[in-house]
Amino acid sequence: MTTLCVAGGRVLRPDGSVEEADVLVDQRDGKILDVDADRSREADETLDATDSVVVPGLVNAHTHAAMTLLRGYADDKPLDAWLREDIWPAEAALEPADVRAGTDLALLEMIRSGTTAFGDMYFHVGEVVDAVAEAGLRARVGHGIVTVGKDVETAHDDVEEGLDVALAYDGAADGRVRTAVMPHSLTTVSTEAFAECVAAADEIGVPLHLHANETRDEVDPIVDEHGKSPIEYADDLGLLSPDTFLAHGVHVSDEEIDLLAERDGTIVHCPASNMKLASGMAPVQRYLDRGVTVALGTDGAASNNDLDLFDEMRDAAMVGKLAADRADAVAAPAVVEMATKGGADALGLPGGRIEPGAVADLAVVSLDAPHLTPVHDVVSHLVYAARGSDVRHTVCDGQVLMHDRDVLTMDTEAVKREARDRAARLAERAD
Amino acid sequence: MTTLCVAGGRVLRPDGSVEEADVLVDQRDGKILDVDADRSREADETLDATDSVVVPGLVNAHTHAAMTLLRGYADDKPLDAWLREDIWPAEAALEPADVRAGTDLALLEMIRSGTTAFGDMYFHVGEVVDAVAEAGLRARVGHGIVTVGKDVETAHDDVEEGLDVALAYDGAADGRVRTAVMPHSLTTVSTEAFAECVAAADEIGVPLHLHANETRDEVDPIVDEHGKSPIEYADDLGLLSPDTFLAHGVHVSDEEIDLLAERDGTIVHCPASNMKLASGMAPVQRYLDRGVTVALGTDGAASNNDLDLFDEMRDAAMVGKLAADRADAVAAPAVVEMATKGGADALGLPGGRIEPGAVADLAVVSLDAPHLTPVHDVVSHLVYAARGSDVRHTVCDGQVLMHDRDVLTMDTEAVKREARDRAARLAERAD
Repeated sequence: MTTLCVAGGRVLRPDGSVEEADVLVDQRDGKILDVDADRSREADETLDATDSVVVPGLVNAHTHAAMTLLRGYADDKPLDAWLREDIWPAEAALEPADVRAGTDLALLEMIRSGTTAFGDMYFHVGEVVDAVAEAGLRARVGHGIVTVGKDVETAHDDVEEGLDVALAYDGAADGRVRTAVMPHSLTTVSTEAFAECVAAADEIGVPLHLHANETRDEVDPIVDEHGKSPIEYADDLGLLSPDTFLAHGVHVSDEEIDLLAERDGTIVHCPASNMKLASGMAPVQRYLDRGVTVALGTDGAASNNDLDLFDEMRDAAMVGKLAADRADAVAAPAVVEMATKGGADALGLPGGRIEPGAVADLAVVSLDAPHLTPVHDVVSHLVYAARGSDVRHTVCDGQVLMHDRDVLTMDTEAVKREARDRAARLAERAD
Repeated sequence: MTTLCVAGGRVLRPDGSVEEADVLVDQRDGKILDVDADRSREADETLDATDSVVVPGLVNAHTHAAMTLLRGYADDKPLDAWLREDIWPAEAALEPADVRAGTDLALLEMIRSGTTAFGDMYFHVGEVVDAVAEAGLRARVGHGIVTVGKDVETAHDDVEEGLDVALAYDGAADGRVRTAVMPHSLTTVSTEAFAECVAAADEIGVPLHLHANETRDEVDPIVDEHGKSPIEYADDLGLLSPDTFLAHGVHVSDEEIDLLAERDGTIVHCPASNMKLASGMAPVQRYLDRGVTVALGTDGAASNNDLDLFDEMRDAAMVGKLAADRADAVAAPAVVEMATKGGADALGLPGGRIEPGAVADLAVVSLDAPHLTPVHDVVSHLVYAARGSDVRHTVCDGQVLMHDRDVLTMDTEAVKREARDRAARLAERAD
């Protein structure tokens, strides 16, 4: 099989328009050959896209995939208590095979909801890389480095781990896996460790990824300790190169947004997590107005509780309007951009556009269900009415990962069984 | 067939606990006979609930069902422009058969997402009643009365229509349809017309339903014109009997919440609509703290854009935390109550509880999908991770409306086709 045709659907083009066309894919290099009417006769294999819209594979630009094992493990608690009493003890008990099982479950869920690329900050990263290699997605991965609250040696080891991971796995899985240096956040990593991270990222040639300005509680300590806002502090540390992608960006001043814009900054907006943990509402329309790149992330499943980018698009549009106090803010076309182009650009991965020469990362979304009837506006439906379960086929790098809801690259029942077993044993150990 | 057993699942009990049990139903009177282990041998028919949770049929306590025809017709616009430029012209062009087609589509979507009862304010209500009678759900319906901006005769006719409807259809569809007198809102109905509505509702013996305190823009005019807050004004008009259910309640003072609590008031919270139209965030935790009954509503599909109560539960929990600025506010168990007991109580309809003697209105939700794996907490999953498409079976009044995703009481393809045709013609007429 060398050419694949996604045939008979409507195609979302990079300019936001939707047109009836076939998408012809060269499976040897995983790229789109052409987007045009009636190309199915030239293909060795056809994917039916009748009554469907073909969109770029969605991009989940900030998650902790293996946290699917902790989905619903603890909810409705203030962030601090939730982390201290529930999440950290459970994570401390995680074994490498747990990370593999949780990541496999996450990849299964992502493929089933049309996500083809993701950014992952976690630990036991080798397990994440193996999972991605087998499942067929694309990812930017890294080890979340934490130094604050650790003795000198443990902190040093964690930085080393983060840098080793960034070096070791960049380009894995035939280039579908790229890495980043991932210092956890501005309050959990020392100034000295940040300096090491910045130098190493530059040397290895990979981006930096960190949490920033997520809650009000992490803004004040930075102002107190360093006499400047978090984004200014990040800039002084040399963290704001154009490749850097910051997660959250909820509590930011206008001056910080200006600075981010000046530095060609990128924010990964995580609306569900920000609501569920009562972190607040990110000023997404203000980011867009200033030209800051905005991507979308689900964050970990424990604070969401799913990895469905369709949910995230809806949440982004909804809470974006509340934050701006204007119903025309964060409109559907902008949200679809965040989940596609914005995500790919944030991660520095190819994808997010359906055009000749682009990688063939695609999701085929059925528009046939009652909850998507009638179709006045396809883009509106993608944001406000569709959900992951409307995705029929998922394609990444030209390979079909899901065909008519059947995931081809994973053993669905085995993945669920292993995740259940490991989650149950983890809960016992952490208890 | 006279007895039905929903067998092998976990059952959500009225106290919020979840236990393994069968639900035995007498289909002759549509009531639950027993909730106990191993009752399937006594039944004529069995519904498999393995790996599933059996919950009370969900209640959508405020919608305008036929607006499914306008799903995605206009989005991302300020409320005023949206109504004037898009929604009202389209609604002015609606024919009775359009209302039937849109309502049929809504009922199909509701059955497919586990909703068994709803509150509907619209017009051409006879069409709504016929649709409900055939599809097998339960509803509290009424004609939305508007008098402001109309000449005396037209206004009078609209009040008459609202009262006639309330009288004519109460008890229709073997009692599954009940009615209410539905003056549209505190700013769109005159003081005199409200007096007529209150007297008629009392005489007919049905509740009142209206929009209240939805946007900031409708609070000030009432204060200016009547010298009191909207809820005080409603109270003075005699609108706040314990049967009355108010939609929205976004912009309310503490004094108004106190007054609602004193009057045994009920708020139908519509979080998605309030976000999408940038109306604001209802203070749901404050309502709960004061003992105000809270139900959930999707509002019309044009401001949501679906009728899925699972989405609405998630939205309610999420935005409830933002509004309270506390992650432990509007917790999952409270949200499930809103969507079940709260909704049934708001509408004054039976349902919302799985216990012997209660009506057999049930939804069987599969917990088997990857996005619901693992299961640490069933109630958390219902609110934060499940979606309408996880519902396997829907039962109302003891009758199976959907069996393994197959809707038995409606012709799915015909309903979608008719809705598409009518929506297209409506859009042409309204253009």
